[in-house]
Amino acid sequence: MIKHSNYGKSRVRLAKVEREGETHSFRELNVHIQFTGDYDECYVSGDNSRILPTDTMKNTVYTLAGKGPLGAIEEFGKRLCDHFLECNPHLRSVRVEIEEAQWSRLGKHSFQKGIEVRTASVIDGKSFHSGVKDLILLNTTDSSFEGYIRDQYTTLKEASDRILGTAVEAAWTYTAGGIDFDVVWHSVRARLVEVFVGHVSPSVQSTLYAMGEAVLAEFPMVEEISLSLPNKHCLLVNLAPFGMENPNEVFLPVDEPHGLIEATLSRGE
Amino acid sequence: MIKHSNYGKSRVRLAKVEREGETHSFRELNVHIQFTGDYDECYVSGDNSRILPTDTMKNTVYTLAGKGPLGAIEEFGKRLCDHFLECNPHLRSVRVEIEEAQWSRLGKHSFQKGIEVRTASVIDGKSFHSGVKDLILLNTTDSSFEGYIRDQYTTLKEASDRILGTAVEAAWTYTAGGIDFDVVWHSVRARLVEVFVGHVSPSVQSTLYAMGEAVLAEFPMVEEISLSLPNKHCLLVNLAPFGMENPNEVFLPVDEPHGLIEATLSRGE
Amino acid sequence: MIKHSNYGKSRVRLAKVEREGETHSFRELNVHIQFTGDYDECYVSGDNSRILPTDTMKNTVYTLAGKGPLGAIEEFGKRLCDHFLECNPHLRSVRVEIEEAQWSRLGKHSFQKGIEVRTASVIDGKSFHSGVKDLILLNTTDSSFEGYIRDQYTTLKEASDRILGTAVEAAWTYTAGGIDFDVVWHSVRARLVEVFVGHVSPSVQSTLYAMGEAVLAEFPMVEEISLSLPNKHCLLVNLAPFGMENPNEVFLPVDEPHGLIEATLSRGE
Amino acid sequence: MIKHSNYGKSRVRLAKVEREGETHSFRELNVHIQFTGDYDECYVSGDNSRILPTDTMKNTVYTLAGKGPLGAIEEFGKRLCDHFLECNPHLRSVRVEIEEAQWSRLGKHSFQKGIEVRTASVIDGKSFHSGVKDLILLNTTDSSFEGYIRDQYTTLKEASDRILGTAVEAAWTYTAGGIDFDVVWHSVRARLVEVFVGHVSPSVQSTLYAMGEAVLAEFPMVEEISLSLPNKHCLLVNLAPFGMENPNEVFLPVDEPHGLIEATLSRGE
Repeated sequence: MIKHSNYGKSRVRLAKVEREGETHSFRELNVHIQFTGDYDECYVSGDNSRILPTDTMKNTVYTLAGKGPLGAIEEFGKRLCDHFLECNPHLRSVRVEIEEAQWSRLGKHSFQKGIEVRTASVIDGKSFHSGVKDLILLNTTDSSFEGYIRDQYTTLKEASDRILGTAVEAAWTYTAGGIDFDVVWHSVRARLVEVFVGHVSPSVQSTLYAMGEAVLAEFPMVEEISLSLPNKHCLLVNLAPFGMENPNEVFLPVDEPHGLIEATLSRGE
Repeated sequence: MIKHSNYGKSRVRLAKVEREGETHSFRELNVHIQFTGDYDECYVSGDNSRILPTDTMKNTVYTLAGKGPLGAIEEFGKRLCDHFLECNPHLRSVRVEIEEAQWSRLGKHSFQKGIEVRTASVIDGKSFHSGVKDLILLNTTDSSFEGYIRDQYTTLKEASDRILGTAVEAAWTYTAGGIDFDVVWHSVRARLVEVFVGHVSPSVQSTLYAMGEAVLAEFPMVEEISLSLPNKHCLLVNLAPFGMENPNEVFLPVDEPHGLIEATLSRGE
Repeated sequence: MIKHSNYGKSRVRLAKVEREGETHSFRELNVHIQFTGDYDECYVSGDNSRILPTDTMKNTVYTLAGKGPLGAIEEFGKRLCDHFLECNPHLRSVRVEIEEAQWSRLGKHSFQKGIEVRTASVIDGKSFHSGVKDLILLNTTDSSFEGYIRDQYTTLKEASDRILGTAVEAAWTYTAGGIDFDVVWHSVRARLVEVFVGHVSPSVQSTLYAMGEAVLAEFPMVEEISLSLPNKHCLLVNLAPFGMENPNEVFLPVDEPHGLIEATLSRGE
Repeated sequence: MIKHSNYGKSRVRLAKVEREGETHSFRELNVHIQFTGDYDECYVSGDNSRILPTDTMKNTVYTLAGKGPLGAIEEFGKRLCDHFLECNPHLRSVRVEIEEAQWSRLGKHSFQKGIEVRTASVIDGKSFHSGVKDLILLNTTDSSFEGYIRDQYTTLKEASDRILGTAVEAAWTYTAGGIDFDVVWHSVRARLVEVFVGHVSPSVQSTLYAMGEAVLAEFPMVEEISLSLPNKHCLLVNLAPFGMENPNEVFLPVDEPHGLIEATLSRGE
């Protein structure tokens, strides 16, 4: 029995130049489309008559991108959803996920690519989720970790002043569409950064909560927010064997292992 | 309100040598641990008194690995679950995911690393899932794709004989523990490969279904199986501009975009 | 016969916090050390008595980082070279390569990581090379490619207005040490970007040359400069099958294949 | 002044199916082409009349691949060199590098991809270099590291029995062409593995030398061989804090930092 199935196209890359006189904009997207619906027959009998090829999904992305301005990725995702739902009788639900590279302007038609990625996912053209990933932040102080459980496997030393580094991945859900997604995205992202920078952190959990709570408190159109914060450890290097102290100055940054703290915050009690 | 939270340690790497006389075994694991439970207070108030540090989770992995034989990764995952559940009153559920590199034997104490990865996840020490990833398979014939929906965005040509290439990711759930995980894993993996090799494929969907069905049919201890098959396209190169035919010989393999076909098959009607 | 040999430690990661009152700096380095010298005997006879373990090289990096301010990576590289040359009689030449992540300041003790990497290599403490990589730049116009050779394998259409995208990797050599490496690095990097942004480009070769020439012309302390510019193609998508024009708006960015244009420019005729 | 320049196409991916009755072969290549020659004018004046577009290089790869059997990658590289040298008057030297994925046969037309990569570079169609990379080998014993230099920065403990793990990258040069590249490649690769497996190693340097010497001793057509052996450390985990011994059983494998031992061995005194 097929309990669940989905199929679609991933990593459809798209760049678009839009021109206002001599001033150009440059956008770079990576689009993922997944169909769920009445497709069991295709799996079981090999009958393809209900299948929209994933190659056609890709062509649709480019064609819709060519029709009028791209708009916010949430809006472009909605247009893709609407098109697919309208044209595919066997399609029950479509999910469009879009990642947008962040290019900063250097001139009228010149840009530099950044490390951050803006994300969106749109389900059936009516459920909107926005987010950010690869937002790599670090505080050199105002972070501690003390008072935790100690057992026979504990070797970690309590730290009253440690480095807190993370690569924020956040995604939030809107109560409805019809908002200015660009304005809200920039505001939410800025608030996340601001809270991280200002928080006096007793734990990653606490910082995560402060970030999420601030967004819920200040953005009524945000229904819930999920945050994933890897704890990118900077280990204090032991210089004692070389006759030196290390007053919280020299560290070994490691990618693995890493802590991973995740939570979804929503409104309500 | 915290709708959901989890925290833990990711990418805990572990290698173990076990010796039987001059013959050694070498195992390489990558362990991920996630706790879910009564931890809201830590997020909200910054009180760490319920938190087992992720560093201690890591130490626990090494210590349990040092006690007796490692066993199958499903069994090692169970031991980790059992330990954590027993020692952490606020822990409601623990998920241990383990990836094991596949090293093939070259001599009594010599090994070569392969590309495939064996996977397992164990929840609360009683729900067992095994799998494989990076199992990269390809058939040069016996694959077609015809009779699909055509619309105004269709450019794909029907193919009666195409290359079918994929990187199989599979995970299956056992009805219960207490089985010989190593024997079953090797048998299920072999069956997946065998079906892929022998299948005359009208679509990736159909091949996926045949692979999953064969496993359910032959392994009564498997309750359900999820398969994720990216369609790693090999595009036929157009040599006509150079006055040549291309009788299905010269291809351009691409990583992006790719189709992605996924389904979960279970027993029952 | 050993024609050449070298050995050393790679990927020694180091972070350092330096404090001036409440204002902290955060630096993140990745250090690579390679020794060349009178080490044939170690290879041939297995005699290790001349080998400084690579683990000790690593410890030396952390210890020297702990002694006083880090300074520019060129200076830190020199201190490492000087130490190793002084203490290792069999060492003939040492090469220290350092990559420094670019963290931008968000607050007194808060930082965000960027995508660019500053690089340096110092040979024997007296030959200094600085550079940059992952400097990803793009112009949406003022780039063409016409008038090239046409043969029986040509399908490329001449472009009078195309996108020019690249990930600049540059390294330049100083005529001598004793300069303010930080100031010069920022100035050279800025000049490279400025020329790229302003250049009306008939080819990647021409843009590369303009960038290199500008640096040689304006920075007398730079003896030569090497530039490596991958041509990160943005392919114009053909929308004609869908009844639409594509007036240089919708593109498919690809990572592979890519052109690769490289040159070293130096002073003199 | 342009001291040196080169330009070309990188990451030209190619797959080829060749059929003998029902038995198919599948080959997957990644081709890199670099031209050096009389191209200064293109850089300096923006005159493209001497430039063969890198897009045409790519087309040439596919066209030559379509003409007759592919042959060994060294031979295919030679055909590419010969073509380019014949047709490009301003080309002084061309370097073709090819990587070939290793697909193992599962059936008459079925294959599984492996982790190893076969490499070749051909210069001007007459200088031939073959190699291998991502050949990941490990011995659990017969490796020690003792008797090295000790200084004030030494913390490494002498090891009489350690794990030796590496990812072999090797490239060797032939005295001439006209040999059976496939047969020789497989023999040299097998010999490298055999020596690694059997060597009682006092250092990575010594193992590297033994591997290279064996190839030079047994393959008269090999003129010189370069080996690059990262020391992929497996660190012994300290279980003492948990009241346990660790008799060389539980290790932490790390990717960074790593030792890097490299040498080129050639014939002659």
